[in-house]
Amino acid sequence: MEKDFINLIKTTLNSPYIGDDCAYLKDLDILVSQDSLVEGVHFLRDKITPRQLGWKSAMVNISDICAGGGEPKYMTISLSLPKDINSEFIKEFYEGAGAACEAAGKVQIAGGDITASPDKIFISAAIIGSAKGRNISSRANARTGQRIIAAGVHGSSAAGLKLLLSGKKAPEKFIKAHLEPFAQVDFSRQIACSQKGKYAMMDTSDGLMDALSQIAQASNVLMSIDFDKISVDEEIKSFPNWHELVLFGGEDYGLIATTDTPPAGAAVIGCVKEGSGVAINGNFYPRNLIEQKIFKHF
Amino acid sequence: MEKDFINLIKTTLNSPYIGDDCAYLKDLDILVSQDSLVEGVHFLRDKITPRQLGWKSAMVNISDICAGGGEPKYMTISLSLPKDINSEFIKEFYEGAGAACEAAGKVQIAGGDITASPDKIFISAAIIGSAKGRNISSRANARTGQRIIAAGVHGSSAAGLKLLLSGKKAPEKFIKAHLEPFAQVDFSRQIACSQKGKYAMMDTSDGLMDALSQIAQASNVLMSIDFDKISVDEEIKSFPNWHELVLFGGEDYGLIATTDTPPAGAAVIGCVKEGSGVAINGNFYPRNLIEQKIFKHF
Repeated sequence: MEKDFINLIKTTLNSPYIGDDCAYLKDLDILVSQDSLVEGVHFLRDKITPRQLGWKSAMVNISDICAGGGEPKYMTISLSLPKDINSEFIKEFYEGAGAACEAAGKVQIAGGDITASPDKIFISAAIIGSAKGRNISSRANARTGQRIIAAGVHGSSAAGLKLLLSGKKAPEKFIKAHLEPFAQVDFSRQIACSQKGKYAMMDTSDGLMDALSQIAQASNVLMSIDFDKISVDEEIKSFPNWHELVLFGGEDYGLIATTDTPPAGAAVIGCVKEGSGVAINGNFYPRNLIEQKIFKHF
Repeated sequence: MEKDFINLIKTTLNSPYIGDDCAYLKDLDILVSQDSLVEGVHFLRDKITPRQLGWKSAMVNISDICAGGGEPKYMTISLSLPKDINSEFIKEFYEGAGAACEAAGKVQIAGGDITASPDKIFISAAIIGSAKGRNISSRANARTGQRIIAAGVHGSSAAGLKLLLSGKKAPEKFIKAHLEPFAQVDFSRQIACSQKGKYAMMDTSDGLMDALSQIAQASNVLMSIDFDKISVDEEIKSFPNWHELVLFGGEDYGLIATTDTPPAGAAVIGCVKEGSGVAINGNFYPRNLIEQKIFKHF
């Protein structure tokens, strides 16, 4: 659904930029992105603290710049707030956003606006990254023979969401993974500063399978994955259908990349082959099956 | 109310950027801003077409960059849409936004996102301007002795809003001024490319008096205005309290600037004097009176 709309926008605007995690603006040597969090769609007010909400709003945007290989630098945040939100909420929200920006390497919040909202909280943040000294990724850059590397633990955020929605409070680490994600700033820097050739990179905000599938589609390749190489928390194995959480659960904000020269220590989870789509341990997943299963808000 | 929140955010983040129409990011030589339009707060779905909504969402952001003296370059737009919005709405919205971007000098829409919303339309656009070859303004730059110049016709948008809300359809030009504003791109370029010294500039999105008062406060000066020099549409004089519409009505997206050397042909509406606040034809308006009267959504 969302992808149909994005295609419609791309066609309407005839823009070369629409569609990636972020847009690389070559003349200004920067990357930009914008992502929103909507109450009742992306979060429930009674399941997340204002501080966590601020943190997460910042991190999801920082992750987009990391996916592009840029250095996250500046953020603007627009908040639309119902009348029953008090100034304490606003203070804690910005403390959380500020802490995330600091933790991600001194990103600065440079502006935005604050408006009324009839009854729901709407948050939209835009982020600017610098491309200086970075090799910028594109999801169309995957080539046959490249290794697929991954950063971050997958499935934990979706496990945390399951716990939250069922009213459980433990294991807390999963809930924390969902409410306080951390973007892969170091991995992104390592890749973008070391890769000489073209490489694809994407964050796994909509799930690992979605990212693999998007790269496969944009690059016209087959992404062949060894499931056992994917980094997971051991305790996730106590969840029913935990494989699904790892593959299709979103909001881990990990990164995957395809590269000819994986950095020392990088987790290689598979390789790029001729063909199309995604194969997990040799089992092929067609795009329409992935689309049905991926974590969607819309 | 909104200003209290902005001060709270400024204090929480200890940021030097928060508070202006846009932030000048010196290391990247760009300006950024973000502004939102919320259904039921900034617009009513049955009073504006999707195309006009797209146009206005783009123009209010373009106006912010113009206020800073930058060249509007790239925009990202986040749309959060209830289920009853169809793809025709999205197409027309982006056609309108694209047309505004084109009309303002080939601004490009480079991304954003589209999400669900429980029941209201939320639009947040972020914009990047280039500072290259431009002398960037600050509202703290007004100095005693400078002339105050203005671009744009004031009061027409507020008159249009009055007509819209009372169900009237004429004079159409006022309604058009409200629904299809045009940012002062040319005036901004003229000033930012010609001024050698420091100058203050602000858009009149929240009303002429608010802009004058904000500059007065930030620069610690008195803004002395000759009301008859303010450009208005003759027909506005048939509205009751039309002076109020001109001074306090918002959303005209005009510009005011203070300068030592007004360009030929610029409308000089007053001068900067020692003191504080705003005087219209010698009558002093204290800040708290202006705050009460300015056009506010919050």
